[in-house]
Amino acid sequence: MDTSLVAIVSSVERGGRPVVGYGFASNGRYAQPGILRDRLIPRLLAADPGDLADETGENLDPHRAWDVMMRNEKPGGHGERSVAVGALDMAIWDLVAKIAGLPLYRLLAVRHGDGTPDDRVFVYAAGGYYRPGRPVSDLADEMRRYLDLGYTHVKMKIGGAPLAEDLARIEAVLTVVGSGERLAVDANGRFDLTTALEYARALEPYGLMWYEEPGDPLDFELLREVAGAYAAPLATGENLFSAADARNLLRYGGLRPEGDTIQVDPSLSYGVVEYLRVLAALGDHGWSARRCIPHGGHQLTLHLAAALHLGGNESYPGVFEPIGGFADGASIEGGYLRLDEEPGIGSERKAALYRIFREMIA
Amino acid sequence: MDTSLVAIVSSVERGGRPVVGYGFASNGRYAQPGILRDRLIPRLLAADPGDLADETGENLDPHRAWDVMMRNEKPGGHGERSVAVGALDMAIWDLVAKIAGLPLYRLLAVRHGDGTPDDRVFVYAAGGYYRPGRPVSDLADEMRRYLDLGYTHVKMKIGGAPLAEDLARIEAVLTVVGSGERLAVDANGRFDLTTALEYARALEPYGLMWYEEPGDPLDFELLREVAGAYAAPLATGENLFSAADARNLLRYGGLRPEGDTIQVDPSLSYGVVEYLRVLAALGDHGWSARRCIPHGGHQLTLHLAAALHLGGNESYPGVFEPIGGFADGASIEGGYLRLDEEPGIGSERKAALYRIFREMIA
Repeated sequence: MDTSLVAIVSSVERGGRPVVGYGFASNGRYAQPGILRDRLIPRLLAADPGDLADETGENLDPHRAWDVMMRNEKPGGHGERSVAVGALDMAIWDLVAKIAGLPLYRLLAVRHGDGTPDDRVFVYAAGGYYRPGRPVSDLADEMRRYLDLGYTHVKMKIGGAPLAEDLARIEAVLTVVGSGERLAVDANGRFDLTTALEYARALEPYGLMWYEEPGDPLDFELLREVAGAYAAPLATGENLFSAADARNLLRYGGLRPEGDTIQVDPSLSYGVVEYLRVLAALGDHGWSARRCIPHGGHQLTLHLAAALHLGGNESYPGVFEPIGGFADGASIEGGYLRLDEEPGIGSERKAALYRIFREMIA
Repeated sequence: MDTSLVAIVSSVERGGRPVVGYGFASNGRYAQPGILRDRLIPRLLAADPGDLADETGENLDPHRAWDVMMRNEKPGGHGERSVAVGALDMAIWDLVAKIAGLPLYRLLAVRHGDGTPDDRVFVYAAGGYYRPGRPVSDLADEMRRYLDLGYTHVKMKIGGAPLAEDLARIEAVLTVVGSGERLAVDANGRFDLTTALEYARALEPYGLMWYEEPGDPLDFELLREVAGAYAAPLATGENLFSAADARNLLRYGGLRPEGDTIQVDPSLSYGVVEYLRVLAALGDHGWSARRCIPHGGHQLTLHLAAALHLGGNESYPGVFEPIGGFADGASIEGGYLRLDEEPGIGSERKAALYRIFREMIA
């Protein structure tokens, strides 16, 4: 997997330098240079400034910019394009917040929340990948490092080994994290119905934090059957890339608003503008935004989580650097991360990422 | 909208020249040079020949080539990528049929059908677009030209004008085609539920051939409500790009296997290999392949329709040249097109298209 990085250099100056918005396409899908260069960027550059600006004329309007990017695009087929739009949408929001002189979470809380953001966000550590010949003790050591970093909840992969072996891996991690509700397991959509149900039966006694993406992300019927057979929490959504697809998950997936988790990643899914539609769909179906813990482990979702009272944010310590992770030196305490007061999203406080962005616009 | 064209030059020779397979990405979505160049073509070129060849070692195996193209691709997100795979899949099947010395419909009928293809395919003429200030008489003239070309059934756009004006347009066309069952109308997914139902009530008395894509292609609940309120046939599917999405349409859309039509376009939807999975999903849900009339109006779907006993094929006379349409000089008689015995799909018999392909590989 790779990613696309975009920078939008504005004509607004702060301290004698142009204000720049930075964005990237999360992680977990491929970069989208083709769609960005052939369709979206040309539309933004060709647009009448009045079609991009807000009513003050002093800043961009991310919703109007979104409409410009999606001009002459057809309905349906949400994948790839959603990733490309997500990268630009992130850069636009970063720019808008910087021009407004606010950290993005404060801007979003005022515009699209209740005005009072959370001052800290729950984050959990995702990892626990398979490696050929990896001993179970090494997996346990990895999880111990996450706890040492301040995380309280962790996630590991399942489904890449026979069930009995996966259960041994889970039990090794449970000896580290202490209780099932601190451990999530992720099947990455690889099970058929029979296997998904077999794992459900075997996992249920552990009372895990969640059992993630048992089958194909669009097989809502499989998910509904698993939900009917599995009393503990489920989580899914990182491979759904639009409000229309998320709505179908809510309609057909049999998920339970009181305990399951929706993981749609805004930066892979047409950005913040579309994510607000995802949250509206959740509200229509009786779900609280607290049931959302986005995929991705990056700064954009941290701001969204704080601003709109989501349930938290994923984190992959050390895995998807430099795009993944939070501000350099940001520390996790008791499983929570505190946000700072710098304007924008915060790529400037990730030295390795910021260096790449600066080279792009040099 | 644009399209991607691909040519696969093989090391097999016929008459002293290499056999070449040609493909393109239908029409109605954008070209995919990025995904083709960055991901799919490099995987095919880097593959071990044994991973692409059939058991004889003398020809490609389109299913194995498909698996190579989709290596390291994640589940879900079916759009764009599906178009890129579709273009290459078309070129691969064209090449395989040429190396086998068969027209594609004969090869497919033996491998994936009952061995006996239809010798002619129902085709209907799609057009009836809006143009600013276009008089209704001009729309009627267009439809008359289609009848003069040998078509018996036609399709026009609706939803771009107020309902009363659309009904006047429909009535003008009915005076040309004679009966409602010879006229389909296409809303291109633009209606909300209220408008979709309003049109349903107004259209029902005409007994039309079908009412196509009333709402967003992924809003299966809207479609189900329309199906419950509209006794005449519906059609949809051109904006669903995978077997997983098609299966959800069948599960949730409320469509009726005895009279509705599925329009998934194989060349926009991961090609023939995936279309066989769409047909399998249809079979699982009690649908006949005769209920499929693919979107696209090109030669690939003509072969599929003949080989697998689909209900027919779309045609856009003169609209999407040179990729759209059939062999030069092919004539429609009584609404049917007869297939020829030339090996492959037939780009060679479309001079304007073949010229572009020859320039590509010159």
